[in-house]
Parts: sequence; C-alpha cells; structure tokens
Amino acid sequence: MPVRQPPAGDGSRAVTAWLDAVRWNADGLVAAIAQDAVTDKVLTLAWMNREALALTAATGEAHYWSRSRRALWRKGEQSGHVQAVREIRLDCDADAILLRVDQAGGIACHTGHERCFFLKLEQGAWHDVEPVLKDPKAIYGDG
Amino acid sequence: MPVRQPPAGDGSRAVTAWLDAVRWNADGLVAAIAQDAVTDKVLTLAWMNREALALTAATGEAHYWSRSRRALWRKGEQSGHVQAVREIRLDCDADAILLRVDQAGGIACHTGHERCFFLKLEQGAWHDVEPVLKDPKAIYGDG
Repeated sequence: MPVRQPPAGDGSRAVTAWLDAVRWNADGLVAAIAQDAVTDKVLTLAWMNREALALTAATGEAHYWSRSRRALWRKGEQSGHVQAVREIRLDCDADAILLRVDQAGGIACHTGHERCFFLKLEQGAWHDVEPVLKDPKAIYGDG
Repeated sequence: MPVRQPPAGDGSRAVTAWLDAVRWNADGLVAAIAQDAVTDKVLTLAWMNREALALTAATGEAHYWSRSRRALWRKGEQSGHVQAVREIRLDCDADAILLRVDQAGGIACHTGHERCFFLKLEQGAWHDVEPVLKDPKAIYGDG
C-alpha cells in the first residue's frame, strides 16, 4: 500500500502547530479511540501517526497507522466501512485522540462485529457477547 | 506508593487464563479506555499492567499503571474520584480494554474536568470546550 503524501500546506508551522501539540510516542504514534456518534458505543482503538491524523482532519475520514502492516490505512478502504469523522478530541496529556464517527455499514471490526469490543469478562473468561453482523469473507472476499 | 500483591489465587493457571489472553505490549501494558456507564462519555485512556487488570476485576474498582510514576495506581486513591467498574471488555486483537464505570464525583480528569478529552480540534487548533468542575488544588491540596 503506498504511503500517501501529507495534505498540501502541511509543511508550514501555523498549519502544523496542532499536530506538534500531540505527544507522539517513541514510535511516532498516538492511540486513537473511535466512538460511534449515534449509539455512543466505543468501536475501536487504533493508532495514528502524524500523517494519519493530518489526513483524518483534512479529509474527514478516519486514517490510521497499521502497526502490523507498517502502513498508512484509510479505515474502510477495503471493506467500505469508512468512518466519517464528526469531531476530533485530544486528552489532557496529549497522548490520546478521541474521534466521534459515523460508522458506514454499522460494522467497525474486521471480524464482522459491530465493534471490536465484543469480548466481555464473565466468570473469569472472555465471552463473545455480540453477534457477527456480516461474514468477514463477504466483507473482504475469500482471498 | 507500594506495589500491591496480586489477589490470592492469581498464581493458578485456571484463574489467570483470561489474563494470559491479553496481548501485553513490550512494556507489559495494555491500553484501557474508561467509559461512563451513565452518560456514555469516554472519560480516560490509561494503561494497565497485569496486576492492575487483575485487581480491577477482583475489586471492582479501576486500577491502572502510571507510566510516569512507574507505579500501580488505584484510580481515585488521592482524589476520591474512584471508578466503580460495571463491565470489562477486551477487543478483537486482545490489545485494548474497555471499562464501563460509575465515575465517583463526576470527575475523571486530574485537571478537574469531567473527563480527559476536553480539547476539541476547531479551525486547526485545540480548544478547551468543557468546564473545570473543581479546582485541582481543591481536589489534591496545594502541596
């Protein structure tokens, strides 16, 4: 997957001050929570590098950094399950982002669940307590 | 701050399987989101080590690992703003925790805001868009 260029104008100091304010970790990443703007459910926790956050703000669609694939990733680029971003927030010590999003297709998780947090601790074990809404094979194809 | 011992019985395999299922990072930590069980607001993003998660489950009060102080930390131990945990969830790839909590005092953030995510991106800058409910000096004392 090609790594996209930052949006035009991203090099000027005035434009990037808000990005400089983020306390990027040693890997240049910040944790980013996505919360459904309609249901208020917490959908996902993913990671952003500077470019992903800049693109999220510039395009209004959530972009992340995949730590496993080491690549920039527009959420939903394969599945169609994009996240339209209504609001971007930063926390008090500037090391976590909170997005309020409209989740396309009502599915945020690659497993076909509505969201990634479908495992609930009950009686000392994790239980899948939410349905798979769509077979991942139907989302991503068999390949 | 003394590091507490894990709860009795934590050494047996059956009791710890759910803890083993968590994908702890290289520092032995997992990201933990706290969401208000009443308002659904995302309050905080903090970190847990194994002991913090075990204690959270055992006591029903949120415990975290302070990366800056390198110490186990019962949320609210100084401020009184404890988080009573209604539910503990794990995400699909087992590297993020979601707590649903009752936030004592209605204040989760050390700044005296209701929650840590009070900075909103507007016109290319972060703006504090939520009130300080209590002066931190009144929460923690002047010292």
